[in-house]
Amino acid sequence: MARETARPAAAPRNYPKGERRRAQIIEAAFTAFGQVGYRNASMVQLAAACGVSRAGLLHHFPTKESLLEAVLETRDRQDGEHFLESGALSQDGLAYFAAMIRLVAHNQANPLIVSLFAVLSSEATAADHPARPYFTARYERTRREMQSAVDDLARRGLLRPHADAAHLAADLVAYLDGLQVQWLLSPDTIDMPDHLRGMLRNVISVELP
Amino acid sequence: MARETARPAAAPRNYPKGERRRAQIIEAAFTAFGQVGYRNASMVQLAAACGVSRAGLLHHFPTKESLLEAVLETRDRQDGEHFLESGALSQDGLAYFAAMIRLVAHNQANPLIVSLFAVLSSEATAADHPARPYFTARYERTRREMQSAVDDLARRGLLRPHADAAHLAADLVAYLDGLQVQWLLSPDTIDMPDHLRGMLRNVISVELP
Repeated sequence: MARETARPAAAPRNYPKGERRRAQIIEAAFTAFGQVGYRNASMVQLAAACGVSRAGLLHHFPTKESLLEAVLETRDRQDGEHFLESGALSQDGLAYFAAMIRLVAHNQANPLIVSLFAVLSSEATAADHPARPYFTARYERTRREMQSAVDDLARRGLLRPHADAAHLAADLVAYLDGLQVQWLLSPDTIDMPDHLRGMLRNVISVELP
Repeated sequence: MARETARPAAAPRNYPKGERRRAQIIEAAFTAFGQVGYRNASMVQLAAACGVSRAGLLHHFPTKESLLEAVLETRDRQDGEHFLESGALSQDGLAYFAAMIRLVAHNQANPLIVSLFAVLSSEATAADHPARPYFTARYERTRREMQSAVDDLARRGLLRPHADAAHLAADLVAYLDGLQVQWLLSPDTIDMPDHLRGMLRNVISVELP
């Protein structure tokens, strides 16, 4: 009891509580979008999963689109932080792809991250999907960043002679996307970091750490 | 008028008409599943799109799952026919991958085929999705078939020395899946047959026709 009263239960500033609630809603949407897709996820069910009323949910996210945006931002931030911590530098091709292997290993331990991206990126290929501009721009950015890493390897003579440097960024991004689907369906058959290492061996002439 | 009366409008056997209606429903579902996903497609909207009542739709497909099954069967049959016509023989690795390039070129001219597969295969990664067993089995079969083609290339010494023959089938299937998503989002940036040819050059030491 002493402990309970010591807590600022009715503290005047409820900002942190609102932030926690917001984070909780994003987390529930993250899971729901990855499991049933954005279009099929229901705001009513999301509210229920978080123990808030529909009005409470709409207070934080007035539209489903705004919640989608928050989920994608969260996903990007987590990915970006993890990738940078892994030492990814697109100017250093070897460091970049070594970090990519570590990121894939990290994602393989977090299926929700993988399924969110696999489900939303495909769903977003529809002409009228609200996340289509986001994914189109995201792929362009990812190809550009990876291209810098590829260009660095080309300059240093670390690409195999037959590798097509102009296509390689799009190709490796494509490969990673498709690998996620097979892994989600057959997690015991596919080991993503192991496969990625093998694929990189096809195009890079030195072994990555 | 003479023409109209000459037509067997009220012919006693309505089987062909029923077959046409069935094909029409499958076609509408093919489009809808590829655009909004299986879960989000509505039987009521599908019926309306085909100009049949809900009861009329349920006469042909008593459940949404049965319609999904028919759509996937149709897709597989079309793919299989086209692939075989292209001369694909998994015992002949070169013929197999040359046919694969032609199949990808064919699909690139038919975005509905591509989006159906991209959307459903990702959606089906959810544990409770009715198409999960289908896609799990389909990927296993595709990997096995492609593995025969890869093994043939290995036997004939046509794989590059660093290529990992044990991973290659899964890797190339993954690559093709991911390429579809980037192409659907940026059809002017990505040319799928061209990219595939380049990717195969990374692992096969002879140029494909």
